[in-house]
Amino acid sequence: MKENKYDETNFFNQYSKMPRSMGGLSAAGEWPVLKQMLPDMRNKRVLDLGCGYGWHCEYAVEQGAKSVVGVDISEKMLEVAKKKHLVGNIDYRQMAMEDIEFPNEVFDIVISSLALHYIEDFHELCNKIHSYLTDGGYFIFSVEHPIFTAYGEQDWYYDKEGNRLHWPVDRYFEEGVRKAKFLGEDVMKYHKTLTTYINGLLHAGFDLCELTEPKANDDFLKAYPEAIDELRRPMFLILLARKK
Amino acid sequence: MKENKYDETNFFNQYSKMPRSMGGLSAAGEWPVLKQMLPDMRNKRVLDLGCGYGWHCEYAVEQGAKSVVGVDISEKMLEVAKKKHLVGNIDYRQMAMEDIEFPNEVFDIVISSLALHYIEDFHELCNKIHSYLTDGGYFIFSVEHPIFTAYGEQDWYYDKEGNRLHWPVDRYFEEGVRKAKFLGEDVMKYHKTLTTYINGLLHAGFDLCELTEPKANDDFLKAYPEAIDELRRPMFLILLARKK
Repeated sequence: MKENKYDETNFFNQYSKMPRSMGGLSAAGEWPVLKQMLPDMRNKRVLDLGCGYGWHCEYAVEQGAKSVVGVDISEKMLEVAKKKHLVGNIDYRQMAMEDIEFPNEVFDIVISSLALHYIEDFHELCNKIHSYLTDGGYFIFSVEHPIFTAYGEQDWYYDKEGNRLHWPVDRYFEEGVRKAKFLGEDVMKYHKTLTTYINGLLHAGFDLCELTEPKANDDFLKAYPEAIDELRRPMFLILLARKK
Repeated sequence: MKENKYDETNFFNQYSKMPRSMGGLSAAGEWPVLKQMLPDMRNKRVLDLGCGYGWHCEYAVEQGAKSVVGVDISEKMLEVAKKKHLVGNIDYRQMAMEDIEFPNEVFDIVISSLALHYIEDFHELCNKIHSYLTDGGYFIFSVEHPIFTAYGEQDWYYDKEGNRLHWPVDRYFEEGVRKAKFLGEDVMKYHKTLTTYINGLLHAGFDLCELTEPKANDDFLKAYPEAIDELRRPMFLILLARKK
């Protein structure tokens, strides 16, 4: 099911108050790692899946991208994107990531930031992306880590005093829907195993170039001291792959 | 530190009673997956790191390997290997995996089954293995999964009634020594992140061919019904890589 959570007023309002929504890329703990892994954008045709406010689309233009297509299911998110992050040759399109259709080999780089855990079928999308990319083109994406999504509730396990004891993992091999609390709302995500992500890429015809489990760096921990527990378990996974 | 746990009499005796010690490859839940991922062994020169009883060395010979070098730190394990699994052109050598030294490009395939979580520095060993392999040579290994090793105790989290509530994860980004209970003994292992395993391979000059988190199949669950909880979290990780 393609859930359009970000068009629900309450959720949208909550999301708009998150540090990363207000502060942009520099307020996202994983950004320094993602940024370093991004391929050279100069003169490239870029597709951004689940572009949201368009921070990454704008960044691509700043880095010299020839053109950028930003896809998102949410009208509200794209309204903000068009108002605040419409620079250069960006084309924002409202549609579900699962519904994209492009001719073969029209993009040089496909990026996706924290969006692909909302889709059910990674293999299908991966095959599509492979066909839209030119030979040697890059696919780079961040997702919630399988360790983070497996249990479902996306919360620590606490003792009676409310201390965070550890991160619980369960149902790992049971891929599919998880209903997590996010910003006080029920949000539907799809747990996938690491095997699904990696072999999805390899079997679609990508070479894996790099995998990173980003962890908050010292600067980020200074700005957001409560993020110290983020070192106790991985929250995100970033993969950079290249079409053979 | 290079621990030689398997030469301690009590541990060795306990290990010898495990299903996989008595039944061999077919009694190891991950074997069907590892077997399927193994490259063609015909006429190949094979190195087995942490060969233990030599089950995999013997298998390599059965599959047509030209020669096999089996390395293990444990004298007792190799005694059994030499007595029970010395077929074809197998050369069993007693030494720590960290101490191996071979000329460049003398092996076509390097395998390692559930041994590399005992070594501290994966990058160093990975670079060595890369140099010992011929171009296009394969490195395939299974290790305990980072989800399995992170917390340290390698046990479920139980409620008061002794029910397994979930698998605890903590200290994920803190790589290094973990003292786990295994067969009633303290055993020293080294937790590594997934990033370390994957990027260790990629940065050493390997292409990643396949990653699998093996899960017990129906046949295994019929033979060992208590293994049902193995579907709740990954225990092993198997990686197949190829020298560029």
